[in-house]
Amino acid sequence: MRNILIIGAGRSATCLIRYLLDKSSEENIFITIGDISLESAQKFTKNHPNAKGILLDVFNKEQREEAVKSCDLVISMLPARFHIEVAKDCITFNKNLVTASYISDEMLALDSEAKEKGLVFMNEIGVDPGIDHMSAMQVIDGIRDKGGKLLLFESFTGGLIAPESDDNLWNYKFTWNPRNVVLAGQGGAAEFLQEGKYKYIPYNRLFRRTEFIKIEGYGKFEVYANRNSLKYHDVYGFKDILTLYRGTIRRVGFSRAWNVFVQLGMTEDGYTIPDSENLTYRQYVNLFLPYSPNDSVKLKFRHSLKIDQDDLIWEKLEEIDIFNKTKTLGIKNATPAQALQKILMDKWTLAEEDKDMIVMYHKFGYELNGKNYQIDSSMVTIGENQTYTAMAKTVGLPVAIASLKILNKEITTPGVLRPIAKEVYEPILKELETFGVYFTEEKKKYLGYNPDDLG
Amino acid sequence: MRNILIIGAGRSATCLIRYLLDKSSEENIFITIGDISLESAQKFTKNHPNAKGILLDVFNKEQREEAVKSCDLVISMLPARFHIEVAKDCITFNKNLVTASYISDEMLALDSEAKEKGLVFMNEIGVDPGIDHMSAMQVIDGIRDKGGKLLLFESFTGGLIAPESDDNLWNYKFTWNPRNVVLAGQGGAAEFLQEGKYKYIPYNRLFRRTEFIKIEGYGKFEVYANRNSLKYHDVYGFKDILTLYRGTIRRVGFSRAWNVFVQLGMTEDGYTIPDSENLTYRQYVNLFLPYSPNDSVKLKFRHSLKIDQDDLIWEKLEEIDIFNKTKTLGIKNATPAQALQKILMDKWTLAEEDKDMIVMYHKFGYELNGKNYQIDSSMVTIGENQTYTAMAKTVGLPVAIASLKILNKEITTPGVLRPIAKEVYEPILKELETFGVYFTEEKKKYLGYNPDDLG
Repeated sequence: MRNILIIGAGRSATCLIRYLLDKSSEENIFITIGDISLESAQKFTKNHPNAKGILLDVFNKEQREEAVKSCDLVISMLPARFHIEVAKDCITFNKNLVTASYISDEMLALDSEAKEKGLVFMNEIGVDPGIDHMSAMQVIDGIRDKGGKLLLFESFTGGLIAPESDDNLWNYKFTWNPRNVVLAGQGGAAEFLQEGKYKYIPYNRLFRRTEFIKIEGYGKFEVYANRNSLKYHDVYGFKDILTLYRGTIRRVGFSRAWNVFVQLGMTEDGYTIPDSENLTYRQYVNLFLPYSPNDSVKLKFRHSLKIDQDDLIWEKLEEIDIFNKTKTLGIKNATPAQALQKILMDKWTLAEEDKDMIVMYHKFGYELNGKNYQIDSSMVTIGENQTYTAMAKTVGLPVAIASLKILNKEITTPGVLRPIAKEVYEPILKELETFGVYFTEEKKKYLGYNPDDLG
Repeated sequence: MRNILIIGAGRSATCLIRYLLDKSSEENIFITIGDISLESAQKFTKNHPNAKGILLDVFNKEQREEAVKSCDLVISMLPARFHIEVAKDCITFNKNLVTASYISDEMLALDSEAKEKGLVFMNEIGVDPGIDHMSAMQVIDGIRDKGGKLLLFESFTGGLIAPESDDNLWNYKFTWNPRNVVLAGQGGAAEFLQEGKYKYIPYNRLFRRTEFIKIEGYGKFEVYANRNSLKYHDVYGFKDILTLYRGTIRRVGFSRAWNVFVQLGMTEDGYTIPDSENLTYRQYVNLFLPYSPNDSVKLKFRHSLKIDQDDLIWEKLEEIDIFNKTKTLGIKNATPAQALQKILMDKWTLAEEDKDMIVMYHKFGYELNGKNYQIDSSMVTIGENQTYTAMAKTVGLPVAIASLKILNKEITTPGVLRPIAKEVYEPILKELETFGVYFTEEKKKYLGYNPDDLG
């Protein structure tokens, strides 16, 4: 029996564990699930004979070393900042490692040691980062193999609510960490390239400089720019690419309404509100509006943001009940962002039967033999239910498949890696298809940014 | 002879040094000016027999200790972050200290030692902080002495261009550190109290939530909120005050135009622009606008910010030549803020004969014997020339006067202090009047925020 240790039994681990348990007999593997809560760990094993749950506090050196020592491969599903100690143990005890997180500088520093020892430390192999890398590199390598030169790369991902569960005016529910959604876009301008020009969008304009995309069968979406597009220049080996733009997908109209919160300062997280616990939703809103002895909060709100009488944004705001005079925040020392999150969670929390949806969309422009071409590639995955969500599926399956292939020596290149090599992405994308995670490609006339072509 | 050591011979030290030199014979004082540039230090002495310039690198322990040891009082005109080592030396060698900077936590930590040793460490005794404290506390103490209760305190200060030198559409020039002007308002929401309600303004709305004030003989100004109004609650000993609001004064229309830079992200200082050195002003502007193959930068700019054809903002933008196609930034690795500063300095740098102006305005609302009253108090000081500026005068004179009074044991209360005690502000304000720095008080009907009164 080969032993796989999974550390961190969170919501994103369901499909990962199901995959490995389903394969455990035929592949002769035993799965140990370690979590800070023994109950969680055990629940995830589902009493499967090839699995056990153990208590594992990742800050307890002895516990951690003991667990790492006795397995053949470690999957860390912990929050990104907790991987590093596990990774160091993997170096010490010669174990392969798989994570779905961005490679940190600390992790990268282990690259030469991992290489020396012949260990595979595969990171960024969830959905975003993960499936985005793999699906993009497959097309990019295909273009390069034919002798083509990349001119444009745009890539968008969104975690959304499935159409069948989409029943609010925002066309949005929290299918993942709500805090990340509330804070999205903060921390500096979004940087990207358009037709050879550097472009910057500050936070306060981010949600108004959206662009539309359309996906056959799913309709229109909008995207706002991610902060970090430029780092993909080196990651994907682009040379002199003209357009490099990554973004986050929302349903049309979400961002314009969300921008209201940004403009008023409701998404700020750097200070706390006095007596926040007892503030009503309406009083919370009033913190961000000028004082007036007799004008209503609603009119001040409309006036401050120049929201017309017949603007649909207003219905969106009413729907989340943000002007409620009796509901209180109930959170001590809340930041504006924490308070907003509370208000939104009242309305945007998934109901029992709700399903989530992951949408990914790439656009590739390239030149081949003096002519320009474009490929659009898109993927939509809908969750089964609230346990086997689209998020858990698209994060967990690549992790699981990669882990097994590393164990089976099908993926062998050592080092601190992300899944951008053909050796990695090709077999994984192929197997993902059998789980309904696949991309639809469409060859198009090259549109680029040429207005003559745009007609 | 008593020895005064002045560390840091910058532009703000001119009036301070002139005052002390003028008094040096009658007061029997000798002034040592220490600066990182010996030439600067010597230039400031003007060959006066009661002064000398010395080389003083504040990071050179030996030099610093030697200088502190041999004086009776130290005036530190260094940037705020450099005071602390000087302050520690003052503790060691039992010297009094005067600075015009905000009391840092490190400085405050010396309070009990200073008290034990009977040393006066007087800080925040420039203009803002400084004259604002003194002039406000004089009125506040007056109200309290009569048995009145403060309901409202608003306080505004601005460093502006004098009317006789005001010759651009922004009605503004850099009369002080340009970098601080470009970055003003960043770092978190402005927090204040209005009629008992906490209010927050995020950076992106700061320059649109201005209010007007009017000063007899000088016309209309506008103010935008400072970040830190709430800390004055404790500093001035307010109990249950309803309105507490501090702000920065500009000429009317400045903020609405400045907001254009804020909205586009041109005041950001957290990242650098590739090849900034060779970018033209127009190319710099284009970084913040969407790509378009054939639309002009100007039209994209107008469209992005919805600037109408006949909006005066446009003339302000043209005046600073921000769309120039040939002028280049000429700064390597510039942040957006540094680049903007460069562009503005072309136009907003003081000309030889220009004069600056300091404007201060307080509004006090209070209750006395069941009735509400209001006092408005304002001060305008105009500089003599580019050496003896209004800024140097209003910063330097309080420092100089306080220093002499400490030396003469007229100010004796020990500790790390700001000038909020009657012992300090009364004689200083009185002497400032003889230099033309005085406040005009006006008793008004209490306006507050009551709309019936506002009628």
